[in-house]
Amino acid sequence: MAKAARTAISPTRQEDYPQWYQEVIKAADLAEASPVRGCMVIKPWGYALWENMQAALDRMFKETGHENAYFPLFIPMSFLEKEAQHVEGFAKECAVVTHHRLEPGPEGGLVPAGPLEEPLIVRPTSETIIGAMFAKWIESYRDLPLLINQWANVVRWELRTRLFLRTAEFLWQEGHTAHATSEEAMVETRRMLDVYARFAEDYMAMPVIRGEKTAQERFPGAVSTFCIEAMMQDFKALQAGTSHFLGQNFSKAQNIKFQDPQGNEVHAWTTSWGVSTRLVGALIMTHGDDDGLMLPPRLAPKHVVLLPIYRNDEERQSVMEYCRHLKRDLERVVYDGAPVRVLLDERDLRGGEKSWYHVKRGVPIRAEIGPRDVAANAVFFVRRDLLSEKRTMPRDEFLTRLPGLLEAMQQALLDRALALRDQNTRTIDRIEEFREFFTPRNADAPEIHGGFAWCHWSEHPAVEQAMADLKVTIRCIPLEGVGPDGSATPGKCLFTGGPSTGRALFAKAY
Amino acid sequence: MAKAARTAISPTRQEDYPQWYQEVIKAADLAEASPVRGCMVIKPWGYALWENMQAALDRMFKETGHENAYFPLFIPMSFLEKEAQHVEGFAKECAVVTHHRLEPGPEGGLVPAGPLEEPLIVRPTSETIIGAMFAKWIESYRDLPLLINQWANVVRWELRTRLFLRTAEFLWQEGHTAHATSEEAMVETRRMLDVYARFAEDYMAMPVIRGEKTAQERFPGAVSTFCIEAMMQDFKALQAGTSHFLGQNFSKAQNIKFQDPQGNEVHAWTTSWGVSTRLVGALIMTHGDDDGLMLPPRLAPKHVVLLPIYRNDEERQSVMEYCRHLKRDLERVVYDGAPVRVLLDERDLRGGEKSWYHVKRGVPIRAEIGPRDVAANAVFFVRRDLLSEKRTMPRDEFLTRLPGLLEAMQQALLDRALALRDQNTRTIDRIEEFREFFTPRNADAPEIHGGFAWCHWSEHPAVEQAMADLKVTIRCIPLEGVGPDGSATPGKCLFTGGPSTGRALFAKAY
Repeated sequence: MAKAARTAISPTRQEDYPQWYQEVIKAADLAEASPVRGCMVIKPWGYALWENMQAALDRMFKETGHENAYFPLFIPMSFLEKEAQHVEGFAKECAVVTHHRLEPGPEGGLVPAGPLEEPLIVRPTSETIIGAMFAKWIESYRDLPLLINQWANVVRWELRTRLFLRTAEFLWQEGHTAHATSEEAMVETRRMLDVYARFAEDYMAMPVIRGEKTAQERFPGAVSTFCIEAMMQDFKALQAGTSHFLGQNFSKAQNIKFQDPQGNEVHAWTTSWGVSTRLVGALIMTHGDDDGLMLPPRLAPKHVVLLPIYRNDEERQSVMEYCRHLKRDLERVVYDGAPVRVLLDERDLRGGEKSWYHVKRGVPIRAEIGPRDVAANAVFFVRRDLLSEKRTMPRDEFLTRLPGLLEAMQQALLDRALALRDQNTRTIDRIEEFREFFTPRNADAPEIHGGFAWCHWSEHPAVEQAMADLKVTIRCIPLEGVGPDGSATPGKCLFTGGPSTGRALFAKAY
Repeated sequence: MAKAARTAISPTRQEDYPQWYQEVIKAADLAEASPVRGCMVIKPWGYALWENMQAALDRMFKETGHENAYFPLFIPMSFLEKEAQHVEGFAKECAVVTHHRLEPGPEGGLVPAGPLEEPLIVRPTSETIIGAMFAKWIESYRDLPLLINQWANVVRWELRTRLFLRTAEFLWQEGHTAHATSEEAMVETRRMLDVYARFAEDYMAMPVIRGEKTAQERFPGAVSTFCIEAMMQDFKALQAGTSHFLGQNFSKAQNIKFQDPQGNEVHAWTTSWGVSTRLVGALIMTHGDDDGLMLPPRLAPKHVVLLPIYRNDEERQSVMEYCRHLKRDLERVVYDGAPVRVLLDERDLRGGEKSWYHVKRGVPIRAEIGPRDVAANAVFFVRRDLLSEKRTMPRDEFLTRLPGLLEAMQQALLDRALALRDQNTRTIDRIEEFREFFTPRNADAPEIHGGFAWCHWSEHPAVEQAMADLKVTIRCIPLEGVGPDGSATPGKCLFTGGPSTGRALFAKAY
């Protein structure tokens, strides 16, 4: 492999951040565009990462009392129309099924035939179809709470797509719950937001800000929407998960009623919450560097890759034998409650090419095993986030210390992401400073500027207008204790001078 | 609960087998029809069963070198048209997306808008879209074999649907592989058939016949289709999985080519194989009885349910404490490589109602714990397949013997299913006997008759005709060593008297 650039990925993040993102996905072989407009193909390495995310989240959902179920892909058009704001929010991006077969056309080829009486929408989200089932299932307060989750594909017709971040079809989970009281539904909404925050920080090593969306950014049909927001390495915000308190909006539209202990018929209170394959994009942009992907150990499809190095058949034999035994013993080591995942790469490739292959794919620990290591009963290895720190360790010590090495890397990634966010977060009280903060300064890296700004605000339309040319939005109103000290104290709106009850988080966003 | 019938399910299998099937699904709360024509809702208990099937199959796929990936839900109409037989096979049952948004119609309400240039088909299977990607990914013999699996939903527009057995949308896995030679592709085709057979027998406790389909029953576009066929309790056959050798049909239609070691461009040889949520239907009909579902322990969402029995608050406290400790200790017991799955049902329901609830749902072991068991430090329990054998065991013995008890039940279910199949399988050489075998005799149970018949056959159209009025089909030509002794010896076709190379399996089928 001709390696002209000093980094494995070209362009670098500084040179062209959006293009760097695409190149990392390509170099790590995570996904690619498909011949179907807006739809991506998730390749094995990317899918294995998503499977690990799924497994961790699924465990957390089950621990909090939720059960998985599966509901139809199709939603009758009339169902979508039941909640006025909901349909308005999704009508512009619906894939519509109108026919149920193909037949030979008058000019040869096939044409759609068998028109449906009522068009079907490919689910963009499932509140309406799941709500219709909830209305059948719920009769009494004894049936509540009803705590359901679905892992599924959904479709929202997008014209400007980006792999993982915005695609017409994506994979996600959607939780849907019904409760007897407003309070219980709100507790659930906040509980699942906390689950998402915990997953982001403990598994993805991605720090997040928990907060509530302003009215403009609410989920269509929700009473309130909560979110987690993360800072990417271009200092933009990425909304990584949302949890919606739906009040009685959907239960009234869909007749989800129960008899309370006093015998009264009452509408249930519902919630919904979801995260998607967008998290893979968030992970890439949080930890990737100019040499490619960097995987937090807890989610890495492989923790360790073993690369045998030899010059002739004799060396090959002893190195391979050593590697196979090492692999077997490594797989008996437990990390994060499960056996360490090891790849022995036996392919016939040049050593440098092979090393960079795994660097770009983000494997946490790369061990290169040559005759010298075999002779010394040692392991030569490099941590993906410390490429210049080459280390050699006695074999037994490596086996013993591996869980600690992985956990140290997991923690180091979180610390680094936290430091980046802290360095690029400001409390701003002057409009000039705000404008300056969000205006590109470095012509060489026009994409990387700004950050998170905590500012006083009000609901006046002038606020949105003032930010429009900067492409800045209010990401969220922080939950209690989440913003910087004093951010919950009243002040003056940065844009109108009017009264503000506290600071909100401002940023450019994906 | 008024229990008028002597069995928990009414009608019984004898009384009305198809209706019994629906009632078991309802009583076990596995699934139900949705408001979307032909699409079902898989409820938590049914979905947990499917998840356990998925987990076991996924492990087997990975052990045989396959990797998961994800491909688009939509297939451009022109892709489907590339393989002539393939499109002919699926054109009549396609959900067709023609528009990408909704807008207000002239008469109020919404209408489909934004017509697509080319209609999109909701995947009925993914050979064409996955093949398009394989064509991009495969360049050299070094890229082969390419071994991919996808877990996904697919849609085949069905008008006459039955829960799990035939629905417009269903969940499945589809394996897609490409190989350098015909031989390797055939080995893969047969390997995955064997994986399915192993899964059916070892996990579902469902014996299957492995064989090849006749030309009429082949997958559209395949060179040969292999299947596993199981006998249900109404003696009908159910095709439980298929594995297709696609030859070069799809690689030629889609230009999947590679450079061989000599530098020649060659078309790859491909396979595909799949099983679906239909397996849940197969499991219900293999093991269910007139008291409901019966779950093979290896796939049961819960292995043991604990039912506390008490008459007053004082008893309640000691019984509940005993149950909680028992649950904790049971969950430390390992069965089939994982902790035993225990449900402690604390709901405030009458004892009888609660017991039948879990009988109908098929939980392998039901333990009822009352003050007497607490005092004796014992466990009173019943195995789902031996409801009349009530047993009491000292607590410690129960903990020690539980894995054996579960494994014994797993084996008993397989043995019983094997016995049923053996009792209802015949080798038939006279047309009169064939007709009699497949003609309903018992007017009280018109659905339950026939069985598996091993008969000599030929490819003459008269064979299909002769069977048409009996609704019998050739299920498969058995693999070597699978049929009864001597079935591979030539003989005379039962229907035409012409030469036959061996016996095939005849049955009515789902």
